Amino acid sequence: MILAGVSLLAACAPTPDRPSVDASIDPLPSWKEGAARTAIVDFVAAVTDPSSPGFVPEPERIAVFDNDGTLWSEQPVYFQLAFAVDRVRALAPEHPEWKDQQPFKAALEGDLATLGAGGHHAILELVAETHSGLTTDEFAAVVSDWLATARHPRFDRPYTDLVFKPMLELLAYLRESSFKTYIVSGGGVDFMRVFAERVYGIPAEQVVGSMGDLAYEVRDGEPVLVKRPGVFFIDDGPGKPVGIARFVGRRPIAAFGNSDGDFQMLEWSTSGSGPRLGLYVHHDDAEREWAYDRESSIGRLDRGLDQAPSRGWTVVSMRDDWKRVYPWQSS
Amino acid sequence: MILAGVSLLAACAPTPDRPSVDASIDPLPSWKEGAARTAIVDFVAAVTDPSSPGFVPEPERIAVFDNDGTLWSEQPVYFQLAFAVDRVRALAPEHPEWKDQQPFKAALEGDLATLGAGGHHAILELVAETHSGLTTDEFAAVVSDWLATARHPRFDRPYTDLVFKPMLELLAYLRESSFKTYIVSGGGVDFMRVFAERVYGIPAEQVVGSMGDLAYEVRDGEPVLVKRPGVFFIDDGPGKPVGIARFVGRRPIAAFGNSDGDFQMLEWSTSGSGPRLGLYVHHDDAEREWAYDRESSIGRLDRGLDQAPSRGWTVVSMRDDWKRVYPWQSS
Repeated sequence: MILAGVSLLAACAPTPDRPSVDASIDPLPSWKEGAARTAIVDFVAAVTDPSSPGFVPEPERIAVFDNDGTLWSEQPVYFQLAFAVDRVRALAPEHPEWKDQQPFKAALEGDLATLGAGGHHAILELVAETHSGLTTDEFAAVVSDWLATARHPRFDRPYTDLVFKPMLELLAYLRESSFKTYIVSGGGVDFMRVFAERVYGIPAEQVVGSMGDLAYEVRDGEPVLVKRPGVFFIDDGPGKPVGIARFVGRRPIAAFGNSDGDFQMLEWSTSGSGPRLGLYVHHDDAEREWAYDRESSIGRLDRGLDQAPSRGWTVVSMRDDWKRVYPWQSS
Repeated sequence: MILAGVSLLAACAPTPDRPSVDASIDPLPSWKEGAARTAIVDFVAAVTDPSSPGFVPEPERIAVFDNDGTLWSEQPVYFQLAFAVDRVRALAPEHPEWKDQQPFKAALEGDLATLGAGGHHAILELVAETHSGLTTDEFAAVVSDWLATARHPRFDRPYTDLVFKPMLELLAYLRESSFKTYIVSGGGVDFMRVFAERVYGIPAEQVVGSMGDLAYEVRDGEPVLVKRPGVFFIDDGPGKPVGIARFVGRRPIAAFGNSDGDFQMLEWSTSGSGPRLGLYVHHDDAEREWAYDRESSIGRLDRGLDQAPSRGWTVVSMRDDWKRVYPWQSS
């Protein structure tokens, strides 16, 4: 049972101030012993132990996670782009003009390189254009159907199977330690909220993302919220701390990302006083997942790799620090 | 202890599915017996009783509250306008040009009617203009200082003393019944978050409001979020359901307001399936608070009064339904 990110364990501890995680159960079974795992466990111990100088009261235990490349994979294209392209194809018979009109033409021709180069902004625009006029409920149903039927091209599995088991354990470990866990992603918020609770245990109200325009209307006496073309907010790069300020209203004490688009979120979260945890997932595992960093157009990690050591951020090697990547892979 | 709106009582009940409020303790001691109180208690009973056809799982128990005129008073002017005017006066020596420049001129001359006519949008602009360049932390300190020193002209008390005791009881009652309580207000979010947790028990991340522009900067190596002139989002009228969709991502099952600016929020919240509660606080108590409705420029309640009966919304008479208004008044 998801109780707004507060675990029964923590809430019901007879002495609420003592650390609430049972030390006899390994909270991170998919993490190998090493510096990354130690950094996480030491951080959680410091902020949850009331006798520690770094103790942080529960309401201030805010942890923010990027989604694409941090909680699930993002290759060969952002999964929301795969969704957008499938939608353009499904709707194309009603829109013969799309054959000659960008970005629809690129989508119909499978020119993912062109589409992907525009990043989350381009994807959000494509989704907004193709779904303008749908209500938020109708859009959620479309996403839900796609997630139930679409298959990832490399693994021939639903996209939601490509979540990282070690990160699911980390989310649960933080929640058991009375953290509130948030997604703060460049992806579309209406897209992510469809699966965030089921897949990550993160309720809709703890998902911050990019947003298109939205209008309130009364249709045949029934009020609806209708998606409109146009972009309202891009939650990427310096937009991430801005999004956190607007939607969360507190500075996080822990931040998790995988690309330079997460740099400012890590910078903002780890610059406050007291113990802070900044962590990058480094995609260096071509065999089990993918290997890419400084030169990639998707999830480029360059400045972050350079500056992580001097800023005290942890860099996780998927290859060396994780016993397994996906929940269905054997360790 | 505020645990993200989840009460210890509810989370720790040995059988989590049974109603969690102790029936021997009156949760609403400042509410007189009558239709309004009965509507509230019956609604909470219906959604928390697992044997009721109207039972609502805990994550879906979202309740939204307007702030000005619903949780605290809003006369003779919105309290945030009083703050803005005091700030213009305090900063005026550094800005001789304000003497001839609107809206600063009106603020310096105490022309509150002119200023107030622009509603929350005008206040937000005035605050943004006067605080542009301040970091969010600096602005919070300014608000905190003002709340500690400013006195309401009629009651000669801090503005935060002018909260409605019956509504504080209602907030607590809903939280004990495993609701998540939100503020959804036309007021500025950076203003309200300074006192919402202390005064209402509502954490920063559950305050939705109007927002000015915000920029992420690194100043002397320290990252900061800086307030900018310009309005990003007005959380009023049809903006309230839009704000709820963006910031909460779920449709509330209960909504509380006092003006036509809350109409769409009540409409949206009460149009879903299952038990719903829409409630208007009617300011009809000139003796203990104020009396105003259809003709008022502040907190006008006209369309809402007309349509409440046909929509099944409860209208609370402050005079007849509340034993007392403010916490410091005897009942």
